[in-house]
Amino acid sequence: MRTELCDRFGIEYPIFAFTPSEHVAAAVSRAGGLGVLGAVRFNDPAELDRTLTWLDDNTDGKPYGVDVVMPMTVPTEGKAVDLQAMIPEAHMSFVERTLQQLGVPPLPEGEGRDGVLGWLHSVARSHVDVALSHRPVLIANALGSPPKDVIEQAHAAGVQVAALAGAAKHAMTHVANGVDIIIAQGYEAGGHTGEIASMVLTPEIVDAVGPDVAVLGAGGIGRGRQIAASMALGAQGVWNGSVWLTTKEYENLNSNKGMTEAFLRASSADTVRTRVYTGKPARLLKTRWTQAWEAEDAPKPLPMPLQNLLVSDAHSRMNSAGDPDVISMPVGQIVGTMNEVRSVADVMADLVAEYEETVDRLTALRGAPVQ
Amino acid sequence: MRTELCDRFGIEYPIFAFTPSEHVAAAVSRAGGLGVLGAVRFNDPAELDRTLTWLDDNTDGKPYGVDVVMPMTVPTEGKAVDLQAMIPEAHMSFVERTLQQLGVPPLPEGEGRDGVLGWLHSVARSHVDVALSHRPVLIANALGSPPKDVIEQAHAAGVQVAALAGAAKHAMTHVANGVDIIIAQGYEAGGHTGEIASMVLTPEIVDAVGPDVAVLGAGGIGRGRQIAASMALGAQGVWNGSVWLTTKEYENLNSNKGMTEAFLRASSADTVRTRVYTGKPARLLKTRWTQAWEAEDAPKPLPMPLQNLLVSDAHSRMNSAGDPDVISMPVGQIVGTMNEVRSVADVMADLVAEYEETVDRLTALRGAPVQ
Repeated sequence: MRTELCDRFGIEYPIFAFTPSEHVAAAVSRAGGLGVLGAVRFNDPAELDRTLTWLDDNTDGKPYGVDVVMPMTVPTEGKAVDLQAMIPEAHMSFVERTLQQLGVPPLPEGEGRDGVLGWLHSVARSHVDVALSHRPVLIANALGSPPKDVIEQAHAAGVQVAALAGAAKHAMTHVANGVDIIIAQGYEAGGHTGEIASMVLTPEIVDAVGPDVAVLGAGGIGRGRQIAASMALGAQGVWNGSVWLTTKEYENLNSNKGMTEAFLRASSADTVRTRVYTGKPARLLKTRWTQAWEAEDAPKPLPMPLQNLLVSDAHSRMNSAGDPDVISMPVGQIVGTMNEVRSVADVMADLVAEYEETVDRLTALRGAPVQ
Repeated sequence: MRTELCDRFGIEYPIFAFTPSEHVAAAVSRAGGLGVLGAVRFNDPAELDRTLTWLDDNTDGKPYGVDVVMPMTVPTEGKAVDLQAMIPEAHMSFVERTLQQLGVPPLPEGEGRDGVLGWLHSVARSHVDVALSHRPVLIANALGSPPKDVIEQAHAAGVQVAALAGAAKHAMTHVANGVDIIIAQGYEAGGHTGEIASMVLTPEIVDAVGPDVAVLGAGGIGRGRQIAASMALGAQGVWNGSVWLTTKEYENLNSNKGMTEAFLRASSADTVRTRVYTGKPARLLKTRWTQAWEAEDAPKPLPMPLQNLLVSDAHSRMNSAGDPDVISMPVGQIVGTMNEVRSVADVMADLVAEYEETVDRLTALRGAPVQ
């Protein structure tokens, strides 16, 4: 599956693995893909700095990337305490009441009170600054084009910029803004996603941006057949995240055995696209928590970044409690095929082997000599 | 793209084209695919009989199929007039008020008063009886497994049975009931569809039913790249419908230039999955009609078959009025790439050519000799 992106980044396979875990990212890069570390969980830039130093030291010199969460236009900004004041009382009491009904214990005193500041523009900018002081080959932005000066800052450091797009018109805007690589994020993907499925979205974006801009297919990519399908649709590589959540290496970050159990038992029908995670539509595991927000008397989710501040303590509480029925976690529809815990190296080897078998099968079916 | 299905049905390409138009069906079959005529629009079995005689005479001896709409369990049944009495007054007045607001004129006196009886079980059974008196090679059912005696009736006549499935568990049930071919209908498809996208659904169903049951990929199939992708995912062929709605041959059935204009200008974002068409979730073109049903004060759609009876006169009125903003028509997300009116033969030639280019590109990327 060698495409131009392999040469551009010095990687063996154009498999771009988004993950909040530096252990997963390092293992993917060591196995020939490109591990991309999600920075949003780092409230303290110094902690991101230490983690990237660890990545520098544990990737055998192989390249890696960093993913930030940065809206192009600066949203409501302020200190967490100011924003907190904008959250309606009814929303806070709904969250607290729901957690009690679901039997979620409080966090130990002093934990989780800062929210996840990575959703704030200023914090995301500090993530970029810290990242560029290390040796990433790619800065990816989960919310589309970063501000132009951030793109210029990355380019000045010799670092490429990738941006997610859920529609062809957004992809065109990203390219006009100077983004190098488009991640075509289909409906079936985990996390922030639009309504157009990969089968339709990927070729539409490939055609819209033209042959000079590489497109990564994202959404529904958990098997080698899906990599082959995405490349049939015109992608130069794939971007995936969910499949790494049930790897052995992810357990370094995830102490919640209930979460792993929830992933392993979920079918492809057990996800939901909802605004309850961040205020923008994102696909999550369907649990009693997401169902509570669908009740008749539930409040409507707040806009970004307020919704995330509203629920971030709740997320911490649920995700440390260990109940597989009460989890708040983005995951794509491929969760239905995440049925065992494996090492990153094993997952990579299976992706590559099934991809190669698939292309060989298609070549044989084609039945005519290659022109 | 020669698969076992080509030999089974005596066709050149495993492209199964669902269409309400006998002119499209005949042209697809003549071009090497399998045209499948949708029977639901035929209230009068004698008219279906005449139309199949026309197909017999206009397919150059090539095979064709017939698609019926038949729930496995018999739903509320009765004469149209009995069912009409079960429709709430408020629903009827909402429909009439909405049509007035949208400027849709009434039908000429005497037209459209029967509803679409093809949704009734008894009428669908008569469709099967009529079909089997001709020479179809396939009976497909848009609502899953037909009743077992209908499957036996088809098999006794040497006719294969295909059924749509939106989840692997439904596919397994169909196979247990004796269905021969599963149509994996992804979220992005037009018409009745589930929530799981083709990229995830197709391999899941292929794995669930095993190598002895052929699967057709459906949903998002409008280009040769998408056929290659679907076959990469494990499908033995594809089933598509939307792409034929902007063919020259379809104009024999569709006198509404507004509908054609609406398809040509629509983007992939201009569809909506809603229960307003039949009572079950189906993907339609997003228009002022579908938006009216999303208003705060709109009633909830009725269950099948009441919803179809409720709106069938409205559909007739809208679809003969010619306003591209007020159309009621199922179509998939690939409507975004349906941008010109072409002949069926041209569409088929493009599908095949792009499929072959795609496989050749993948073969070259693979970079290793075929084992």
